[in-house]
Amino acid sequence: MNDSFILHAQLEADCHRLGELNQQILLLRDDVRFPWFILVPKVNVGEIFQLDQEQQAALWSAARQVSTFVESGYVPDKLNIATIGNVVPQLHLHIIARYQSDVCWPGVVWGFEGAQAYPGGAVDDIKSRLQESFLQTGLWVSA
Amino acid sequence: MNDSFILHAQLEADCHRLGELNQQILLLRDDVRFPWFILVPKVNVGEIFQLDQEQQAALWSAARQVSTFVESGYVPDKLNIATIGNVVPQLHLHIIARYQSDVCWPGVVWGFEGAQAYPGGAVDDIKSRLQESFLQTGLWVSA
Repeated sequence: MNDSFILHAQLEADCHRLGELNQQILLLRDDVRFPWFILVPKVNVGEIFQLDQEQQAALWSAARQVSTFVESGYVPDKLNIATIGNVVPQLHLHIIARYQSDVCWPGVVWGFEGAQAYPGGAVDDIKSRLQESFLQTGLWVSA
Repeated sequence: MNDSFILHAQLEADCHRLGELNQQILLLRDDVRFPWFILVPKVNVGEIFQLDQEQQAALWSAARQVSTFVESGYVPDKLNIATIGNVVPQLHLHIIARYQSDVCWPGVVWGFEGAQAYPGGAVDDIKSRLQESFLQTGLWVSA
């Protein structure tokens, strides 16, 4: 983990920075069609197995916490959790709430065109809910 | 974990059973276009966060070992690792070797039609290599 870590330009362009959880950068994909969170370990690798055991444990711990946040706050029909990286090689983990009523169910969202940006204020609301959920863990830093 | 666990019929139909690693069923999707492995924890849940901590650790440990096996044996350009479950709700983890030269790069493989079955003998070769790689861990049982 390091503070000189630079987020990939494509993730920076497509997402809002929400904060950091357990030293993983937490992003929100700017697409209101899907509650779509992304965790980025602050390590310059492309694959999970390139993280050491401690770094892997930190990523899975954060993923578990974000999953619980998404499950209770969004009540999805299914979570889609994945590292793909065919386009953006910097390791990042998608955690996406899916609904049988969403626009691309049961297909996967990667490559599905037509992202719709969040309206003003909506991202701040999500940040507030994250702050409420995670502040007492001592592992959360707001962006 | 339990021995009365029943694999989902769709996974049974689409895959070859290779064995069990660290109590996770290891499957090979019957599609020679992609080296496509699937781990199934023997627990009747749909989401990773529904596994207890010990079960999650067992799944990630097996995923790490399969990733290393795939990385060294197939030398992919990228691993795609995911739990989707929009179609088959039984929790299963995809570990797929992807190449810039494969037929759907950089797209994802889920929903990509036209699976081509492995030729005779090829699956037995993969089983032999798994046996060689994992037998000494004490965590491998051949199917």
